Amino acid sequence: MDLKSSKNIFVEMMFILNKNYNEYLDASFGKYDLTATQGLFLFKLEEFPDTTQKDLAKHFSLSKGWVAKYFMDLENKGFIEREKVQNDKRQYKITLTSKTTDLLPTFKRIIYDWNDQVHLDDLGDDFMDKFSKLVLNSSKVAVR
Amino acid sequence: MDLKSSKNIFVEMMFILNKNYNEYLDASFGKYDLTATQGLFLFKLEEFPDTTQKDLAKHFSLSKGWVAKYFMDLENKGFIEREKVQNDKRQYKITLTSKTTDLLPTFKRIIYDWNDQVHLDDLGDDFMDKFSKLVLNSSKVAVR
Repeated sequence: MDLKSSKNIFVEMMFILNKNYNEYLDASFGKYDLTATQGLFLFKLEEFPDTTQKDLAKHFSLSKGWVAKYFMDLENKGFIEREKVQNDKRQYKITLTSKTTDLLPTFKRIIYDWNDQVHLDDLGDDFMDKFSKLVLNSSKVAVR
Repeated sequence: MDLKSSKNIFVEMMFILNKNYNEYLDASFGKYDLTATQGLFLFKLEEFPDTTQKDLAKHFSLSKGWVAKYFMDLENKGFIEREKVQNDKRQYKITLTSKTTDLLPTFKRIIYDWNDQVHLDDLGDDFMDKFSKLVLNSSKVAVR
């Protein structure tokens, strides 16, 4: 039985897209003993080396406790090194290890391969602009 | 610190959009002791009354065991009634209870309210066509 909706239910498309993408990311990053979210953290730390755990929590709307747990795990697995900041003992200076810098091209390839397979480039700038606006709007939605 | 990427990282936008949407859906459906996925199941059952658990598992790429657990829960909470099919004891005939048919307009309002708040209608048909193609492509991506 074909359950394709007669109505254009965006929520359903989001569910399926997200499920597919997560399956791919979990399998790909899982090989390196990482979650997909931890992979995203590493990309951010490479692009913005002064990023703090607090910055990441804010950017991804995650709880600070949750981010702390993920960072502890990244440290234990040798992906990052953390050093307490002299003036603020609650803050860490985070550095990527050479293991991570060696692996980053491979991690990016994981993302680019997915982009290629879904033909992301064919969607065009207008689509990406609108998608980016949608993401922004979704951050303003009131959760009741 | 603003962590907005200089590169247009689709994966990151997906992460944030999905996180925001899930937060909204979990809070909204949670009030009725339902998960968002169970809400989607109920919509499907209303639109396609002959839907089986197997159909839903296939449509949402979920494991049959997982769908079975969700249906057991829906039955226990009085959202559906299940009756074994005479000719095939492994299949159930599923019926929505009056509790559910009474609540369905409210559940749909949850979805429509989000659509309104993110201005989904402003994105246009071309965006939706492309998004739908993206979802379709994502189902074909090889998970290695």
